[in-house]
Amino acid sequence: MANLRIIPLGGVGEIGKNLTVIEYGNDIVVIDCGLSFPDEDMLGIDLVIPDMTYLENNKDKIRGFLITHGHEDHIGALPYALKKLNAPVFGTDLTIALIKNKLEEHNVNHAKLVNIQPGDIIELGCMSIEFIKTSHSIPGSVALAITTPAGVIIHTGDFKMDFTPMDGEPIDIARFADYGSCGVLALLSDSTNAESHGYTQSEMEIGKNIEECFARAHGRVIVASFASNIYRIQQVVDVAVAQGRIVCFQGRSMLSICAIARSLGYLNIPDEYIVDVESLKDYPDERVCVITTGSQGEPMSGLFRMANSTHKLNIGYGDTIIISASAIPGNEVGMAKIINQLYQKGAEVIYDKTADVHVSGHAHRGELGILLAVTRPEYFVPIHGQYKHLYHHASLARNMGIDPEKIFLLNLGDVLEFSDKGADITETVPSGSILVDGLGIGDIGNTVLKDRRILSQEGVVVAVITISKATGALLAEPELITRGFVYVKESEQLIANAKEELKKVAQKFAETPKTDWANTKANIRSTLKNYLHEQTKRTPLIIPVVMEV
Amino acid sequence: MANLRIIPLGGVGEIGKNLTVIEYGNDIVVIDCGLSFPDEDMLGIDLVIPDMTYLENNKDKIRGFLITHGHEDHIGALPYALKKLNAPVFGTDLTIALIKNKLEEHNVNHAKLVNIQPGDIIELGCMSIEFIKTSHSIPGSVALAITTPAGVIIHTGDFKMDFTPMDGEPIDIARFADYGSCGVLALLSDSTNAESHGYTQSEMEIGKNIEECFARAHGRVIVASFASNIYRIQQVVDVAVAQGRIVCFQGRSMLSICAIARSLGYLNIPDEYIVDVESLKDYPDERVCVITTGSQGEPMSGLFRMANSTHKLNIGYGDTIIISASAIPGNEVGMAKIINQLYQKGAEVIYDKTADVHVSGHAHRGELGILLAVTRPEYFVPIHGQYKHLYHHASLARNMGIDPEKIFLLNLGDVLEFSDKGADITETVPSGSILVDGLGIGDIGNTVLKDRRILSQEGVVVAVITISKATGALLAEPELITRGFVYVKESEQLIANAKEELKKVAQKFAETPKTDWANTKANIRSTLKNYLHEQTKRTPLIIPVVMEV
Repeated sequence: MANLRIIPLGGVGEIGKNLTVIEYGNDIVVIDCGLSFPDEDMLGIDLVIPDMTYLENNKDKIRGFLITHGHEDHIGALPYALKKLNAPVFGTDLTIALIKNKLEEHNVNHAKLVNIQPGDIIELGCMSIEFIKTSHSIPGSVALAITTPAGVIIHTGDFKMDFTPMDGEPIDIARFADYGSCGVLALLSDSTNAESHGYTQSEMEIGKNIEECFARAHGRVIVASFASNIYRIQQVVDVAVAQGRIVCFQGRSMLSICAIARSLGYLNIPDEYIVDVESLKDYPDERVCVITTGSQGEPMSGLFRMANSTHKLNIGYGDTIIISASAIPGNEVGMAKIINQLYQKGAEVIYDKTADVHVSGHAHRGELGILLAVTRPEYFVPIHGQYKHLYHHASLARNMGIDPEKIFLLNLGDVLEFSDKGADITETVPSGSILVDGLGIGDIGNTVLKDRRILSQEGVVVAVITISKATGALLAEPELITRGFVYVKESEQLIANAKEELKKVAQKFAETPKTDWANTKANIRSTLKNYLHEQTKRTPLIIPVVMEV
Repeated sequence: MANLRIIPLGGVGEIGKNLTVIEYGNDIVVIDCGLSFPDEDMLGIDLVIPDMTYLENNKDKIRGFLITHGHEDHIGALPYALKKLNAPVFGTDLTIALIKNKLEEHNVNHAKLVNIQPGDIIELGCMSIEFIKTSHSIPGSVALAITTPAGVIIHTGDFKMDFTPMDGEPIDIARFADYGSCGVLALLSDSTNAESHGYTQSEMEIGKNIEECFARAHGRVIVASFASNIYRIQQVVDVAVAQGRIVCFQGRSMLSICAIARSLGYLNIPDEYIVDVESLKDYPDERVCVITTGSQGEPMSGLFRMANSTHKLNIGYGDTIIISASAIPGNEVGMAKIINQLYQKGAEVIYDKTADVHVSGHAHRGELGILLAVTRPEYFVPIHGQYKHLYHHASLARNMGIDPEKIFLLNLGDVLEFSDKGADITETVPSGSILVDGLGIGDIGNTVLKDRRILSQEGVVVAVITISKATGALLAEPELITRGFVYVKESEQLIANAKEELKKVAQKFAETPKTDWANTKANIRSTLKNYLHEQTKRTPLIIPVVMEV
C-alpha cells in the first residue's frame, strides 16, 4: 500500500510563495502556486517563485492545482508552473478570473481552468476534494478537505473567522466540524497571525469606522487599500454612494481587479457613480471619492504619485486620505514617508495609528483555537508563516492537547510521510527560492547578488591598460573609470593619483618577463584596492582590463 | 534691539541628527549635535550628520554646545562639529563621559568638556541656561530652560514622565511649572511618540515582567537591549544577582558603555558577578545571564552572531532569550529574522509580541499634554519627529488652547524669529544631510547614489574597444566584462553575441570619418543597452571605454 506524503515547497518558514504537495501513490495534487516579493538582500530581483523541481520530476502524477484564493502569494507562480506542467487548475469564480488575467499577461494560453463553488466535491486520482467556504480579505476563498486512502487532510488556505462578512456567507465552520466528527488525519492551518492573541474584528466593524471618517470629511476622500480586498472596496463604495460621492478608481491593479470583480458580481456599484480621473474636475470636492492602490507606499502606485505630486489629483488642504491597510513588514518606512508627505501637503490623513480603518484577513490565536477544536486533527502541521509563527501555532496546538509528537514544524522540501507506523519526515526533496529577474528565471544566484551588494555599497572602478603583445610595453595612457564610488568632479586628484599607481604596476610588468594575465589583473586589483582604501576607506569593486595589441 | 532666532538644523521632519540653534545678537548656543543612520536609499553611506554651514559661517558667535543626553542622535556629530567649531560642550556626567569616549575614537583632543548637574545654571553670552532633570532611556538626561533677553525658551530634549524611575529621581516637573508661572515664551518639545495615546509605562513596571521571565527560565538567560539603556541593564543585573546568576556583557558598545556607566556609579554590580565569555563554561546554565547588543537585529552585533551560530555561546534548547527593545522603523524584518533563527535553534524567545519587556523612553500624548499644561508657553514648536509626529503634537497643542498662529511646524533651516511684532519664519539658512562614507564627508551626492542604485539592481557591463589613432581600425578583440548582471558561466552565448554587436559598432566607426569619442561611446552604450534589454529585460549600467593606440 502506498503512503500519503505532504511536501511543502513554499509557505513554511516564510510568508509568501505558498505551495503544498499532497501525494498518494501515483497521484499528486498541488495546493496553491504563489510567488513572493524579494527580500531586501535580493537586490534587483523582481519576484521569487518556489523551486518546482520535484513537480517537474513527477509531472505525470499531477492531477490538478487546487487554488484556495486569488492572492499573488497563492496564484503568482502559476504562469511559470504551467509552462512546464500540464494539469487543470481549480478555483472559485474570482480566483479563476484573476488567474486567467495573469496567464494572459504571460501568454500562457493552453491552461485548463475549472470553476468550482464552495461545497463542490471533485475527484482527482485516488483523492476527493471538497471546497469549504472560508472568510479572508478576498472573495471566493476556500479551504480544502482532501479525502485520501490514508485519511482526511484539511488545508485551510488563508482564513479568518468572520461571522458577519460582507457577502453574508460566513466561514462554513459546521462543515469543518463535520469532518472533525468523522476524523481528520491532519490539519494544515494558516499561521500568519499566530503571534496575535484574541480574535480579529469583523470586516463589518471597519465599515462603521470608515463611514465616520467620510462623515467628518469636507472635501475629497481618497481611500488607499489592497486592490484585491473587494469587501473593503465595496464598503467604501457603499459609503461613498450613500453620501452622494462619485467614485474614481486609480492604479493599474485597482482598475483591473475591480473590473473583473464587477463583471462577476463581486463588486456592486451603479455605472453612473463611476467616473474617470479627467472627469473629477466636473464635481465639487465633497462629491468625490477616489479609491487607489498604494496602501503599502509602493513606488509608482496611485497614492505614491499623489504624495509625490506626480498624479493628476493635486492633493492639498481639504483632502482626506484614508489608508485602509497596515504595513506588511518591510514597508513601514515607505508608508511613513508617504504619510509625512501627505500631511505636508495639508491633507488630513487617517491610518492605522490614528483610527481603526483596517482589519487583518488572518485568524488570531482565538480563531486558530476554534478551528483546532472543531476539526480535532490527529496530526497538526502549521503552515503559512515564518518559523516564529509556526512555533506559536504549534504551541497553541500543544496547549490544546494535541500530542506533541504529532505536531510537525516542517521546513521547505521536507516529506512528511504517513505510513501504518505513524508519520515522520522521511526525506527531503529539492526546494527553495527561484529568483526571477527580467526574463531570467533562476539564473541569478549568490555570486551575482554578492556583486550587486558590493556595487550598491561601494561602486565600481574599471582600470584598463593597453599593452603590446610583443614587448609588454604600455601602448596608451591607462584609463580609470569609476561609477558609484566617488563624485568624480571633486575627486580629480584622487583619480589622477590612482592612475599613476596603475601605470607603475603596468610598467613593472613590461620590464619583467611576461607573466600570465590572471596575475597581472590580480596585481592591478590589489594595488588599486589598497591605494583607494587608504585614501577613502572605501572598497569598490575593481575590474581590471588588459587589452593586448 | 536684537531678535531671538530659533533654527533647527536637525531633528524636524526626521527622527535623528538633532541640532537646534538658539541665537540672540552676537550669541549662539547649540542644543545637541547628533547623527542619524542612513535611509535605505542612501546606499553604502555609513552615517548622516547635519549640514553645519550656518554654524561655520557664525563660528565666532558660538558660546557652547548644550547636550541633553548621550544618545548617538544627540552627540554623534560632535566629532565632526568640533573639528571646525571651537566652543565648550556642556552635559551631565554620563553624557560627557560618552562624548569623551567618542571624541577619542575620532582623535579630537582639544575639546573643552564641562560637566554640569541638573539644577545648575550657566551663563553663556546674553543667555542663562538651567538644566532640568528629565526621565528618558539613558541616565543623565536633561531639558534646558534658556533665559534670553527676549524671554524663556524651554527645550525638552528627549523625555518621558516617569515618576518611579530607577534612579529614584523623577522628572523635575515642578521646575517646568515654575518657569510656566513666570512665563515661557516658547516650548520646543519631543514629538517622537505624539501618535501614541495615553501614557508610557514606568521603567519599574518592565522590571517586574523581566523578573517573571527570569523566574520561568531553567537554563541560561540572554537579554538583548540598547547598550545605553543603563536603567534597563541595571534591572536585568538586579534580577540576575538576586537569582544567583553571574553576568557576562557581550557586544562592543555594551562592554564600553557599561564600563563607563560602572566607573561613574550609574550601573551597580558587584565585581564578583561579572565574568567574561570564556569563563561561562565554569557555571551551570541556570547561573548564567548574558547581556548583549543586537536588540535591533544589527548585523555583527552580539545577538546576531548568536542567532547565526558565529558566537562562542552556542544557543540551543534550554536557553531563554529576552529581547528588551522594540523595532526602530526599518528594523522589523531584520529583528524577525533573528527571532526565527533563535526559535529554530530550540531557544525560548521573549519579545514585544509575546510579553511586556520594553517601554519607550519618549512621552506619549498624555505626558506631552502635561508638559504643555505646566509650562503654558506662548509659542509652541514641536521638535524631534517626522512631519506626522510634529503634526499630531501640534494638533494636541491646538486642542489645548494654544493659539494656532503661535504654533510653528518648522522645516530644517527655517529661522523662527521673535521680534516686537511677534514671531515668524523670516528666512531659511543652509541645512540638510551631509553623508559620511568612509573618510568622505559630504562628497557623496545624488549622482553617486543614483549610480549605486542602478548598480545594485542591474549590475554593470564594461565594454572596451581598442582602436588605431591613425585609422580608427579595431586593433584587438573587444572586451565585454559584466558584474552583478548575469551569471557569467551560464551566459556565455549572450556575452559572445553582445561582443559581436559591439564589434559591429566599432567597425562602423572605423569605416566612417573619425567622430568624437563622446558620440562613439554613446553609440556603444545605446547598442548594448538595446541588445541586452531585448535579451534579458535588464538594464545594467554600461561603461564604454575606447582605448586609442
